[in-house]
Amino acid sequence: MYRIFTLSIFFLVALSTSLFAQSQAVKVAQEYRDDNAHSILENYLEFLSIPNVASDIENIHKNAEWIMNAFEERGAEMELLTLPGQPDVPPVIYGELNTPGAERTLILYVHYDGQPADPNNWTHAPWKPTLYSASMEDKGEPIEFPEADESINPEWRIYGRSASDDKAPFAAMLSTLDAFQENDIELTSNLKFFFDGEEENGSPHVRQILERYKEKLDGDLWLFFDGPMHQSGRPQVVFGVRGVTGMEVTVYGPSRPLHSGHYGGWSPVPGQMLAELLASMKKETGEILIDGFNDSTAPITQADKEAFATLPDVDDEIMEDLGLTWTENEGRSLIESYMYPTLTIRGLSSGNTGELARNVIPTTATATLGIRLAKGNNPEDMKDKVEAHIRKQGYYIVRDDPDMETRLQHQKIAKVTRGGGYPAMRTSVENPMTQQVVDALKKATSDDLILYPTMGGTLPLYHFEQIMQKPIVIVPIANHDNNQHAPDENIRIGNIWYGIDIYFSIFTMD
Amino acid sequence: MYRIFTLSIFFLVALSTSLFAQSQAVKVAQEYRDDNAHSILENYLEFLSIPNVASDIENIHKNAEWIMNAFEERGAEMELLTLPGQPDVPPVIYGELNTPGAERTLILYVHYDGQPADPNNWTHAPWKPTLYSASMEDKGEPIEFPEADESINPEWRIYGRSASDDKAPFAAMLSTLDAFQENDIELTSNLKFFFDGEEENGSPHVRQILERYKEKLDGDLWLFFDGPMHQSGRPQVVFGVRGVTGMEVTVYGPSRPLHSGHYGGWSPVPGQMLAELLASMKKETGEILIDGFNDSTAPITQADKEAFATLPDVDDEIMEDLGLTWTENEGRSLIESYMYPTLTIRGLSSGNTGELARNVIPTTATATLGIRLAKGNNPEDMKDKVEAHIRKQGYYIVRDDPDMETRLQHQKIAKVTRGGGYPAMRTSVENPMTQQVVDALKKATSDDLILYPTMGGTLPLYHFEQIMQKPIVIVPIANHDNNQHAPDENIRIGNIWYGIDIYFSIFTMD
Repeated sequence: MYRIFTLSIFFLVALSTSLFAQSQAVKVAQEYRDDNAHSILENYLEFLSIPNVASDIENIHKNAEWIMNAFEERGAEMELLTLPGQPDVPPVIYGELNTPGAERTLILYVHYDGQPADPNNWTHAPWKPTLYSASMEDKGEPIEFPEADESINPEWRIYGRSASDDKAPFAAMLSTLDAFQENDIELTSNLKFFFDGEEENGSPHVRQILERYKEKLDGDLWLFFDGPMHQSGRPQVVFGVRGVTGMEVTVYGPSRPLHSGHYGGWSPVPGQMLAELLASMKKETGEILIDGFNDSTAPITQADKEAFATLPDVDDEIMEDLGLTWTENEGRSLIESYMYPTLTIRGLSSGNTGELARNVIPTTATATLGIRLAKGNNPEDMKDKVEAHIRKQGYYIVRDDPDMETRLQHQKIAKVTRGGGYPAMRTSVENPMTQQVVDALKKATSDDLILYPTMGGTLPLYHFEQIMQKPIVIVPIANHDNNQHAPDENIRIGNIWYGIDIYFSIFTMD
Repeated sequence: MYRIFTLSIFFLVALSTSLFAQSQAVKVAQEYRDDNAHSILENYLEFLSIPNVASDIENIHKNAEWIMNAFEERGAEMELLTLPGQPDVPPVIYGELNTPGAERTLILYVHYDGQPADPNNWTHAPWKPTLYSASMEDKGEPIEFPEADESINPEWRIYGRSASDDKAPFAAMLSTLDAFQENDIELTSNLKFFFDGEEENGSPHVRQILERYKEKLDGDLWLFFDGPMHQSGRPQVVFGVRGVTGMEVTVYGPSRPLHSGHYGGWSPVPGQMLAELLASMKKETGEILIDGFNDSTAPITQADKEAFATLPDVDDEIMEDLGLTWTENEGRSLIESYMYPTLTIRGLSSGNTGELARNVIPTTATATLGIRLAKGNNPEDMKDKVEAHIRKQGYYIVRDDPDMETRLQHQKIAKVTRGGGYPAMRTSVENPMTQQVVDALKKATSDDLILYPTMGGTLPLYHFEQIMQKPIVIVPIANHDNNQHAPDENIRIGNIWYGIDIYFSIFTMD
């Protein structure tokens, strides 16, 4: 029924591409993937069979070759962006697909490498993609590839490394381009492709690539096709990511472990010193007590608040799922908390606990502090502020374990090891270029689109922002329960269909 | 020169045992061990060759047999104290050596079992006792057993398991009894022997033994021959030991580890909760903030203060050695601190630190708390007080990891695992019976005797105090640098000589 309806719509609107209404683009896309579902899947399974860990340079190049061929077949001009003298760096695959008369250029980011996978932890081999009748959690079973006359259920899953993260956008994008070609529809933007080959390895060379090929990569808007959809299952567009940094703090007690009977109540106890130091930095209820920690944070605008209003209120549900009856910074929603810098104790250690506990006063106590950054926070400046606070508590800061002379010169000593990191990136919700994408997405989705001001996770997007100076928007298509970075990664077929729908809508936006 | 002098003294005083002045007893002892040093050592090396870990019941019985024979040869009546139906429990070796007319009975405690030893960590096999020219730290070298005409240097060491802890008192005691016999001197007290065979295993059956053989074990004063001398090298007598207990506290964050980017600044962080809880219990400067923690502590008397005055002030030296410029409870000396209960963080853990640190909010944070007890503190009561404090901080206390239902019913949850333990034991410095021992020791030592009100370490002496209701005094003879409980345990020969001197003096006290 549905199919007949969409078909008739298609014939009505497809008489002329110039008359083609972007609002109806989705129908064309749906029609196309209904007709071609088998070949889309077959093609995708082939692609998922090529191992794609960034360090496996031979297979990385096989992936690159597959991608280059696929995009060239669809009319794009492709090339590899490399760094001279660094043959073992996975190349960025670059491409262009120009539309005569188009005045806007979209740069599409996807990464073709995937997380390493230990086959022992997978139900099936990571690079032997396997079709399932539903997710394993929903008692799905492996199924054979469907016969030509058998319809394909959007609830089916493909299990395999990178099925979601981040090869899924390739499956959707290639099908989208095919749909354009088959229907003789023209895109409304020029496309540039930027396919990263070492994202899961932290994209260590992306900055150099951007600097080297800056001119070639120029365009109006970067679209990052990566990440999962909202956990509610609703479509979303994401305007930013948190930044990240961190530090490790070690405080010192006696120079050797002391018998807790012979020296307890007399020797300073590093665990106690650390507890007092950490309690002075932040309340368990979330309030950060470090001077100026929040000063550089970008203010929350009216538009941000309106974006929050598009978000489903799932906090209570998540809390229940996590066995929590309270949260830090009471009254601030999970998503709202992404707009502020954090200070999180990721690890504590001193002596031993449990079965290994001994009757000693340990020599040191260590806390690993994670700092997530909001727009405006500079990673070095934030660490400086924490260090200033530590000094204010009477500590002398060292970079290496103190020697005896240092110990005897300073009452309290803290070794601070500063981590690296990068700032947050956030494109304004009010940017006119991003508004066009938002409009296109709204048209492609019957569900309310979620405007997500910033993600909790961290991606090195700030390189792109800093060097390219263009707005960046993240448009995810993967199901939220895709097990990315874990064994049994999977994509729900319906999410590839969703990708085709929204890409079609974006590529035909006004 | 010295030897001739002591010899002549001996002849003057030895005309009649009844005229024998106790103040000159030491001279007789010195004379005896000078004359018999080779055979004393030879005998001791033989004894040290018998492995003596409490769990090695076959060898434990070989040790018992050796001891029984040795004491029977010296006129004592020996027997094994056992528990019915428990053949694998190392027996207590009991003995009596009565002196006609003596009105006082001393009960002498020594333990004949030793700490387990991993031969891989020892320079020589633990039960192949090896003579050294000095301590290994002082660049001592292994030496052959001396020829008969070669004098024996008191600075020599014997390396071997239990050389100090706690077989050394046997070497000294047997020689002391030989010296009495050879010189036909009579003891001034009846002696009872109580030789523990599982002290290093925590003396788990000692209470049953004391209860079962209470009448037989009756006497006036228990002398514990165990432990090292003062670190200054000066002789000491110890009137008490700290008690001990402890607990482990685990606080709960989310029910599964959360990505610190996706949930940081929103999810409660167990490390932060624990830091705040621990900081609320105690200041790093030592002040304990738990209500009533110090209420049951026995007051410090004038006599205690006088005993403190006999102690060398070594705190500055120890601090420098440990790289410390400050201590907890400023103004309270190390020894004085033993008179107060302690709360020490022995271990902290949450997530991971260092190389293993991950970008997560851990689910739990754990602190292992050591509590040392002063005279008057009851172990259960002290743990109750800590628990009351934890509740006061808003925690609901559980004994097992909370299930989802429990989590959702209580805001903050702490799992408290209560450790065992036992109270402190302290004999009054003013007890008349102990005063006699102190006088005897003062006469035997040219150095100032240190009156040590309580040791930092913990021994289960309270069983003896509770059941036998008699004063207890600890008289150590081992060198303080004996590596007890560690590889390369050793005894300085001069410390066996010192043992003979003071035992002789005690056994002839008025």
